[in-house]
Amino acid sequence: MCEEIRFCSRCGTPVETRIPDGDTRPRQVCPACDSVHYVNPKLVVGSLPVWQDKVLLCRRAIEPRRGYWTLPAGFMESDETLAQAAERETLEEACARIELQGLQTIVNIPHINQVHVIYLAGLIGGQFSPGIESLETRLFSEEEIPWGEIAFHSVSLSLKHYFSDRRKGAFLLREETLDAAGNPP
Amino acid sequence: MCEEIRFCSRCGTPVETRIPDGDTRPRQVCPACDSVHYVNPKLVVGSLPVWQDKVLLCRRAIEPRRGYWTLPAGFMESDETLAQAAERETLEEACARIELQGLQTIVNIPHINQVHVIYLAGLIGGQFSPGIESLETRLFSEEEIPWGEIAFHSVSLSLKHYFSDRRKGAFLLREETLDAAGNPP
Repeated sequence: MCEEIRFCSRCGTPVETRIPDGDTRPRQVCPACDSVHYVNPKLVVGSLPVWQDKVLLCRRAIEPRRGYWTLPAGFMESDETLAQAAERETLEEACARIELQGLQTIVNIPHINQVHVIYLAGLIGGQFSPGIESLETRLFSEEEIPWGEIAFHSVSLSLKHYFSDRRKGAFLLREETLDAAGNPP
Repeated sequence: MCEEIRFCSRCGTPVETRIPDGDTRPRQVCPACDSVHYVNPKLVVGSLPVWQDKVLLCRRAIEPRRGYWTLPAGFMESDETLAQAAERETLEEACARIELQGLQTIVNIPHINQVHVIYLAGLIGGQFSPGIESLETRLFSEEEIPWGEIAFHSVSLSLKHYFSDRRKGAFLLREETLDAAGNPP
C-alpha cells in the first residue's frame, strides 16, 4: 500500500524531493510543472453489523490476511460519504443491508497511513452471504468470536468495545491509535 | 485540488482508464507496470478552540477564500493521528495550544473529495496570534461571529452546532454532508 512517487502524474517528469515554498515538509515536487504530490492518509470505512445477540464477520478471500475474519470494511471512494462507504462495503463483502446506528470506533494507524472508521449497525432482516471478497460470512456470539483469527487489530478493538459497551448498556464512540505492533503508542 | 493522473507515478508511462480485474470502477491503470492509481478522499482536520464564552477564528492569508474567517484546520499528514493534526493546524494557523475535548463535527464533501473533521477544544491560557497562513486571529462571542465572511460551509456548520449545543448544555458529535451549493444533498 506504500505510495511510491517517482514520476509526476501530471506531466511524467521524474520528481525531486524538496520543501516547497511556504511548506515545512519535504514533498515530491515536479521540476518541470511545479506540481506538488502530497501523500495523505486514506480512510478505511466499515460496519459492525449486529443481529440479535450476534455480530456479523467475514472471512477474507483476498490478501492481506486471507482466511482471517474481519468486519466488512474497505477504502472510501471519492464520490461517497462515510456512511455510504460503510453501507457499500457491507453490501459488497457480506451481501448485507444495514441500518447505521452511529460512529463506533475510529482508529489512527499512522505507520500505514490509514484512519479506520467503524459504524455500529443493525443487520436488516438477518440476511447475509459471502461477497466476492469473502470466503464465508457468519454470525458470532461474544463467546464464539475467533479472537486468534481476527484479520486486523482495528477490528479486534471495535469488537472488544462493542461487547464492553453492550454490558454497560451505553455505546460510546472511541478514538484509538495503533503502532506497527498493534499496540497503543 | 483536483487530482489529475495522466502518467504513472511509479514508472512514468501514460496511464489508461479501465476497470482493473476484481474491481467494479474505472481507475487510472499503468499499461507498463500495472500500477493502479486510486483517488481517495482526503481528510481536513481542525479545531473549534473555546476561551470563556468566545471562539477563536483565523482570517485566511492564503487562497482559497483569502480574507475570510475560518477555524484552524488543514490537510492531515501521513505520520500523524486525527488529534495530532488538529493540534498541529491550530498551532500553525493561530499559534495556539489547545486541549481537545472530543470530535464535534464531521462533514462529508463528496464533490471535492474531502472529509472535514473538527474537534471541540479548550484554548490553553487564552494565548494566540496569527500564524503564517493567517492575516488575523481573534476571539468572537456568538453575537460577533461574521457569518457573511466565513470561509467554508463546513466551518459555519461547526460554529452553528457549537452555539446550539452550548445553549442546550450538551455537546454532540454530528455528521453532515454538503453538496456543491453548500447544502445537505
